Amino acid sequence: MIIHLKACSEEQAKALGEKHKAFCMFDGERHVLINSSSVKELPADLEEYTEDYWVFPNDNQLASRHYRNETRTIDLGGIRIGGSSQNTLLIGGPCSVESEDQIRTSASFMNGLGLKMFRGGCYKPRTSPYSFQGLGIEGLKLLAKMRDEFGMKIITEVRDASHVQDVIDYTDVVQIGAKSMYDHGILKACAKARKPVMIKRGFGTTLQEFVQAAEFILSGGNNDVILCERGIRTFEHGTRFTLDLCGVAWLKEHTNLPIILDPSHAMGYAYGVADLGRACVAMGIDGLLIESHPNPKVAKSDASQQLDHEQFEKLYHSLKPVAESVGYRMI
Amino acid sequence: MIIHLKACSEEQAKALGEKHKAFCMFDGERHVLINSSSVKELPADLEEYTEDYWVFPNDNQLASRHYRNETRTIDLGGIRIGGSSQNTLLIGGPCSVESEDQIRTSASFMNGLGLKMFRGGCYKPRTSPYSFQGLGIEGLKLLAKMRDEFGMKIITEVRDASHVQDVIDYTDVVQIGAKSMYDHGILKACAKARKPVMIKRGFGTTLQEFVQAAEFILSGGNNDVILCERGIRTFEHGTRFTLDLCGVAWLKEHTNLPIILDPSHAMGYAYGVADLGRACVAMGIDGLLIESHPNPKVAKSDASQQLDHEQFEKLYHSLKPVAESVGYRMI
Amino acid sequence: MIIHLKACSEEQAKALGEKHKAFCMFDGERHVLINSSSVKELPADLEEYTEDYWVFPNDNQLASRHYRNETRTIDLGGIRIGGSSQNTLLIGGPCSVESEDQIRTSASFMNGLGLKMFRGGCYKPRTSPYSFQGLGIEGLKLLAKMRDEFGMKIITEVRDASHVQDVIDYTDVVQIGAKSMYDHGILKACAKARKPVMIKRGFGTTLQEFVQAAEFILSGGNNDVILCERGIRTFEHGTRFTLDLCGVAWLKEHTNLPIILDPSHAMGYAYGVADLGRACVAMGIDGLLIESHPNPKVAKSDASQQLDHEQFEKLYHSLKPVAESVGYRMI
Amino acid sequence: MIIHLKACSEEQAKALGEKHKAFCMFDGERHVLINSSSVKELPADLEEYTEDYWVFPNDNQLASRHYRNETRTIDLGGIRIGGSSQNTLLIGGPCSVESEDQIRTSASFMNGLGLKMFRGGCYKPRTSPYSFQGLGIEGLKLLAKMRDEFGMKIITEVRDASHVQDVIDYTDVVQIGAKSMYDHGILKACAKARKPVMIKRGFGTTLQEFVQAAEFILSGGNNDVILCERGIRTFEHGTRFTLDLCGVAWLKEHTNLPIILDPSHAMGYAYGVADLGRACVAMGIDGLLIESHPNPKVAKSDASQQLDHEQFEKLYHSLKPVAESVGYRMI
Repeated sequence: MIIHLKACSEEQAKALGEKHKAFCMFDGERHVLINSSSVKELPADLEEYTEDYWVFPNDNQLASRHYRNETRTIDLGGIRIGGSSQNTLLIGGPCSVESEDQIRTSASFMNGLGLKMFRGGCYKPRTSPYSFQGLGIEGLKLLAKMRDEFGMKIITEVRDASHVQDVIDYTDVVQIGAKSMYDHGILKACAKARKPVMIKRGFGTTLQEFVQAAEFILSGGNNDVILCERGIRTFEHGTRFTLDLCGVAWLKEHTNLPIILDPSHAMGYAYGVADLGRACVAMGIDGLLIESHPNPKVAKSDASQQLDHEQFEKLYHSLKPVAESVGYRMI
Repeated sequence: MIIHLKACSEEQAKALGEKHKAFCMFDGERHVLINSSSVKELPADLEEYTEDYWVFPNDNQLASRHYRNETRTIDLGGIRIGGSSQNTLLIGGPCSVESEDQIRTSASFMNGLGLKMFRGGCYKPRTSPYSFQGLGIEGLKLLAKMRDEFGMKIITEVRDASHVQDVIDYTDVVQIGAKSMYDHGILKACAKARKPVMIKRGFGTTLQEFVQAAEFILSGGNNDVILCERGIRTFEHGTRFTLDLCGVAWLKEHTNLPIILDPSHAMGYAYGVADLGRACVAMGIDGLLIESHPNPKVAKSDASQQLDHEQFEKLYHSLKPVAESVGYRMI
Repeated sequence: MIIHLKACSEEQAKALGEKHKAFCMFDGERHVLINSSSVKELPADLEEYTEDYWVFPNDNQLASRHYRNETRTIDLGGIRIGGSSQNTLLIGGPCSVESEDQIRTSASFMNGLGLKMFRGGCYKPRTSPYSFQGLGIEGLKLLAKMRDEFGMKIITEVRDASHVQDVIDYTDVVQIGAKSMYDHGILKACAKARKPVMIKRGFGTTLQEFVQAAEFILSGGNNDVILCERGIRTFEHGTRFTLDLCGVAWLKEHTNLPIILDPSHAMGYAYGVADLGRACVAMGIDGLLIESHPNPKVAKSDASQQLDHEQFEKLYHSLKPVAESVGYRMI
Repeated sequence: MIIHLKACSEEQAKALGEKHKAFCMFDGERHVLINSSSVKELPADLEEYTEDYWVFPNDNQLASRHYRNETRTIDLGGIRIGGSSQNTLLIGGPCSVESEDQIRTSASFMNGLGLKMFRGGCYKPRTSPYSFQGLGIEGLKLLAKMRDEFGMKIITEVRDASHVQDVIDYTDVVQIGAKSMYDHGILKACAKARKPVMIKRGFGTTLQEFVQAAEFILSGGNNDVILCERGIRTFEHGTRFTLDLCGVAWLKEHTNLPIILDPSHAMGYAYGVADLGRACVAMGIDGLLIESHPNPKVAKSDASQQLDHEQFEKLYHSLKPVAESVGYRMI
């Protein structure tokens, strides 16, 4: 249940929340209580403090369209997505930050095309200890340097709770990776962060669980959450994962959160990324994440799925008319 | 291995095929032998009869791009798809043929919009004996009647080998359903049919197996096979199935067969079909299959996923600019 | 809804069935009507003819434990499984009937161990046209010959509706394969057959759909249906399929049909079959199907998963104490 | 590649490891270097320091049977599993530690039956913020109290890196949960811990990735890692997950790590746990984990799958003969 409280002090709101074992947050306009969706009737002793309330069939509450019947507008440091913006934000960059040279070559290229947001991983969630694990804090500093040099916003991934504050400090948008999206340590830290957060769906995660991960952050007081579909694990191994666009249709119908798609990880092979990228944009979405490396063959991670710069540029130019055909604008 | 024989009589070709336990077919220009992909070297005694030959890593042979490096052109009774046509064929109609009234209302509407091909199921592959099983041969006759009245081509599904000849006789394009695509009885009958065949991918079928089903028909002498992706079964049950567009990218890269997509069955809910339909078209495909019923609420099968006529018309008009944005033309 | 009719003639029963669009069958003691589970109240005009009736939440009706609260006893030509028999029937034999020599070597060995039922495929549901497809009717004749020579009962698979009657005629138990279990042509023919039928679960088939396939046969008048779990297709490709023993627990709880397990196809590798076979038997089941070939290395199908005779014999001897530890007896 | 160094000082070993970007650990007998499995030839400059070395097809190295061809023996505080022990350890207890009363009732019961290890979750990895999240550090203290009172060893789960040290400090065996097993923060902390670690397989995790998570801990210097299969997520939703016993057969063939199975989470319903528990034991395994609550109906988590004490006791007594039938002993 979500309860909009009448005007009151933060102390009063928190006291009511504690009494009812409910989360208490401020949504910019009012104090809000949220408790389990199993509560179906407004507690009698809350009636006098309540302006409005909503009942839900499951724990998709703050994120649900039943609560807010439009996509949230999120400001990514001057870049607006969601709401009535009709913007589809293209985010490019390599899988991993590998060196200053590599990351500058990439940032310079992306900036030259006009991209507003740049990606690169510093804490790589590799499944083997014997693979490249990322540059860590040194990578974060290189990304910050690129932001200073080129003026693009930065998005980078947090891998586990031990370094979540570093990522929050350095990045413009915090990315929670597919393997970390159940991590309470990360989710709670992001709930308190004053930065937008993009959660990637785990490859074994249901849509309902995916939205509930967002609820951890929303109920903790951070209103700026974006969902990212990047492919689920299915029996089909001809491709790396299976991009779930049916799931995207579900999310658009049932949630109020902006959606960014990542066809690179889903496909796992460069050859399909362009077709899939255009399909994603035709869904009418808020952003598109494409991995591209100055020289994919020598990339230290995900070599097979990264576009080279020529491929990326070609894709970039093809996206604009697709976005326009469905009433969106690539930015 | 595929072997193009030098000019010879059908008897000679067949004799060589039998000797080498290979399929023998005529592809319009020459006799062709095909045997297992495990054969990696041209048998010495075939050298003198061989014009050209191809070796393959797996049993994706006649359908592979390694063999023919462009999409086959298929003539669906005057409607061309594939090849250099850049056509995306829209196929509409209800899930099931239910009555003469219902099917005429639907056909009349689809014809009025300008559609060239009409669908409707007569043999429904229901999973329960207690559900509506379709009108059978009476349904086929009604479809033929609609073809006569409105001039649209007809596509309808064969469910099992016991009535495959009836379907072949009545329809313009034979549809092999997702639950029947391993059916040797059907595949062999379609191999001998002089009609184009559209195979739907089983919801538990790998891409490799899907292509191999096509190989049954191609190696039996029917060159006109179309693949239809309609969603695979995954852990995600918020939607009915998961449309596998990564798989479509794989099929475009690895096979020479035209591709038609069916977002209605994948989604299972009318609300997502329009977004998905546009995404499908943006992939650059040869056809799109959308279920629509004059009154979905009373439909005898798949009620929740069929668009009503108003929704269908709205979708129809939105598809044209998407197709154009990727260099295709809706027909 | 299932309705037990009061004593009446077959004509009367059929007339009532037609009037109510219900299946009408004789279960050995009485005429029974079955219609959709969506019927929740006994039609008023049937009250006077009704002895008893059952309402169901879904189309698992004749097969459900709500209807019959014990496992059906099935007589496989003198071999009893299910009911209070506490028998676990071991079925052995090669994947395919390949030649008279091969099948006699195998049958002789299995008979020597004391096995009562012998398996071998004649119509192989291969996914590629370029693989061995089975000996067809010649294979059936060889199996019948082995039955005559050794006195074991025979189980063999039907692949599609075009040869279902041949299989019914030759075999003692009809096996419907995993790729054919939705095939209405086969299901309907088996419903009329006077032979027990074992249905293998499709690798993409839900438990509910699996039971509904059995309902096709049961509602058509054949009471002797056995379910066979043989592995489902999941994201895990280290093994061929994933044997679903949770599903077996579900079937034991929700259905009244005997259950046979096939760990060979699930595993896909000989090394795991013995451990899995013992686990299957410890579930408390009605039968176990193990593939074994006189010389697996030269087997024309499924070479990697078939046990050699030495491995089979060792497994055979290890199964008895496991069965006894859970109150069953290997036969 | 794994390299056994000749006798040398720790400093020498570390210097060689750093030079070759390899992990360096002491396995109790010698210093060992491990680097990527992509290294196929022993570097020339290491030859003089090398006693023995192993080459691998993938990053299953320290855990592989190619390296150590028997299951590791692990001492869980006086309880031995693996190696030649032929012990199958039964671990019981509730899903969550809920209160002192509840946990004492449970521990007293389990101790009375003779169990040697007790489980209970303090940091619950719930997917919704609106569910019970566990007692945290207070729960750990209650578990420690039970250990003092009853003398059983304790196993409990770490949820994220923010409290990993607390769990390591209080527990006898550290459990890494299915949702946390990719967590580098946890894996690295466990690598340095002097406690045995049980890793649960993620429900979307391949067997290869599962073993690689163990490699993080093994290569970091902790030799005592146990694998726990607890069900994977598949299309089948009649049960909560699908217990992957084919995967267990794979793990037994390919790794040297002891295996504990958890049928409770896989099944999700109490009714199937006993049958599955017996099947697990018949696989020949090192441990079995069964959830049981004094009063499942009021359990704060996983209510539907926990056995009550009567069911648990009945299962307990039935396991002994099954273990013996396959040459193991329940402890």
